[in-house]
Amino acid sequence: MPVARAILDNLERSSWIRRMFEEGLKLKQQFGAENVFDFSLGNPDVEPPEEFKTALKEAVASSTPGKHAYMPNAGHNFARSEMAQKISLEHGVTLTEQDVVLTVGAAGALNVILKTIINPQDEVMVLAPYFAEYFFYVNNHRGTLRVVETDADFLPDVSAMKRALNDKTAAVLINTPNNPSGRVYPEHIIHAIADMLNEFGQQTGRYPYLIVDEPYRDIVYDGITVPPVLNSYRESIVVSSFSKTLSIPGERFGYIGVNPAISDKKLLVEGFAMANRILGFVNAPALMQYAVSKSWRSRPDIDRYRKRRDMLVQAMQEAGLSYAKPEGAFYLFCKVPESAHCKDGESADITFSLFLKDHNILAVPGTGFGYPGYVRFSYCVPERVIEGVSPVLKQAVEEWTR
Amino acid sequence: MPVARAILDNLERSSWIRRMFEEGLKLKQQFGAENVFDFSLGNPDVEPPEEFKTALKEAVASSTPGKHAYMPNAGHNFARSEMAQKISLEHGVTLTEQDVVLTVGAAGALNVILKTIINPQDEVMVLAPYFAEYFFYVNNHRGTLRVVETDADFLPDVSAMKRALNDKTAAVLINTPNNPSGRVYPEHIIHAIADMLNEFGQQTGRYPYLIVDEPYRDIVYDGITVPPVLNSYRESIVVSSFSKTLSIPGERFGYIGVNPAISDKKLLVEGFAMANRILGFVNAPALMQYAVSKSWRSRPDIDRYRKRRDMLVQAMQEAGLSYAKPEGAFYLFCKVPESAHCKDGESADITFSLFLKDHNILAVPGTGFGYPGYVRFSYCVPERVIEGVSPVLKQAVEEWTR
Repeated sequence: MPVARAILDNLERSSWIRRMFEEGLKLKQQFGAENVFDFSLGNPDVEPPEEFKTALKEAVASSTPGKHAYMPNAGHNFARSEMAQKISLEHGVTLTEQDVVLTVGAAGALNVILKTIINPQDEVMVLAPYFAEYFFYVNNHRGTLRVVETDADFLPDVSAMKRALNDKTAAVLINTPNNPSGRVYPEHIIHAIADMLNEFGQQTGRYPYLIVDEPYRDIVYDGITVPPVLNSYRESIVVSSFSKTLSIPGERFGYIGVNPAISDKKLLVEGFAMANRILGFVNAPALMQYAVSKSWRSRPDIDRYRKRRDMLVQAMQEAGLSYAKPEGAFYLFCKVPESAHCKDGESADITFSLFLKDHNILAVPGTGFGYPGYVRFSYCVPERVIEGVSPVLKQAVEEWTR
Repeated sequence: MPVARAILDNLERSSWIRRMFEEGLKLKQQFGAENVFDFSLGNPDVEPPEEFKTALKEAVASSTPGKHAYMPNAGHNFARSEMAQKISLEHGVTLTEQDVVLTVGAAGALNVILKTIINPQDEVMVLAPYFAEYFFYVNNHRGTLRVVETDADFLPDVSAMKRALNDKTAAVLINTPNNPSGRVYPEHIIHAIADMLNEFGQQTGRYPYLIVDEPYRDIVYDGITVPPVLNSYRESIVVSSFSKTLSIPGERFGYIGVNPAISDKKLLVEGFAMANRILGFVNAPALMQYAVSKSWRSRPDIDRYRKRRDMLVQAMQEAGLSYAKPEGAFYLFCKVPESAHCKDGESADITFSLFLKDHNILAVPGTGFGYPGYVRFSYCVPERVIEGVSPVLKQAVEEWTR
């Protein structure tokens, strides 16, 4: 075969999302884009804020020599310092530029961390439903994904997490606000996770890393705030990007920040910088280091996402569907209703997604997120799409449950 | 340990280059930057051409919606199509956008390819001296580097390559114009490599990929041209970037192009796009896809590099050093003279580099390039640095050989 066996497996594994995407393209060609209700992708359709656009124009216009050149693999110090300020504000501990490594998005950041910390067969604990790509990221670096289910509210089940900890656990990776559930993990649960890890460390001498992946931290509703994590556990690492909050996912800019008191910090941060280099990222895109450093304080247009969330929630209720209450991010995770359409041995979420697709509605099966029985709707789509889908969804669910 | 064993090994392995870099920073603080002759890094100090700057400004000023958004993992079709035109001109075969995947630099491109094609324990053949990072790239994806020495002129020794081919050989990876030797592999040798691989494929049924990494294709001197590769072997893949030719290494923009007749092309290109995604690159930076698509035809200022090469060659001759004739790129690979300063069991290149460092001259030991006994001088430095180094180098070599 011309490609590696693992890549064939991965192509197979990721084929459902790809298939929905490709089916969507076909449907749009056949029926016209305006007649297809595409909730498949988390690609913000809100344009970047003016602050970012201005900062980018200024960076391009400036005559700074070498502004497109290599810099140290961890990034320019001025930009690391700006990100240190941001993380300090959000996490209740004081970081300096030495505690930050700039990366090619949050996806790059996670790969850099996992490359740096995982020995072969080490486990990384994730909570289902989890961001589908975690499987691949852990696998890239010869680790094993250890999946622990969340509770009935899609919040961490700390007892279950505790039972899953073992001497192979290199890290616990959490994602809040969560993709796909839209839930925000509350402060008392973060503390409970920290306590559990500290207790495990005291007993065994190995303190697993707690990695929090939070690209949606600024996208929350109803006065909810996302609690800090770094101030509750010493061996903690935060990962984020500006893909969602500045609507620049194509530009690939993110960061890693470590708890300033983390063990062997110098070695760890050097490891991150080297992993950035040897994995082929080399450094975060240079121009974005200038532009984001001057614009990270700007806020995304939350009202717009909230309005869409409310519209989609309304459509779900009218269709009689149950769902996780979306507190943050721009995803709604919806339960597949019982149906005679599901044959024995089939995953209900896949069958339901294909059924919805036949009604020109595109959503992603939960299977990819380690959570069959649910489907994910992404609502970073124009309001007319949500308005349009409401009667169609109701009709489809009626047919499905009939 | 807080970091993986492999990362500790890698930190150790890459420590010489880092040490030279850090020593350089210390020396500059101590003696002033103008008194340190830093030939350690291949970071072009020539500013990007006007065509690139104009294209970037236009891209930033345009009101294209979603220009910073996600696009398919292989890149925007318009940009893939531009790169297909470029590769077609250079390689004597006609590519379309379907034959191109845009990447986070050439380093990203190589990792994407290796992730896609390597099964564990597969071998990738490289020719010493080789770009130091190849070791890590192959290792990232569980492959084994199979090193074959070049001949006395630093050109591929096709007989030796043939002897090294075996049933584990997934690919042969060549780099021309070469870093660190500055040599350009001539057309008859490319043909001989192609013939050898075809013969091996006919005998065994396995045709190894021939990957050519050519970020320096446009930086050549004395009327030399870099011969095409894709038109001489069907299972061939080209990798490049604009880091050197447009002087934008910090922006991380590169590409993969496949021979349009390559076996199982659709599967292979899909594999590349998926590897781009799951390794965490996701896509080549979006804005650069616009800017480079409009400016890739501009030429680097070769005269400037040639002048520097000539000055450095002169300095080498005056110091009585032997070196590989630099035909392209901006590196000069220089032989370490015999010396009583070298103690038994020491690598002469490392000792010589440290000796030069004590004279405020920074060059990189050949060990990192799989070629002890030589050191690399990078001449993308201001002319005053080369002027200044000449008497100092002569003096240092006199002391070294005394």
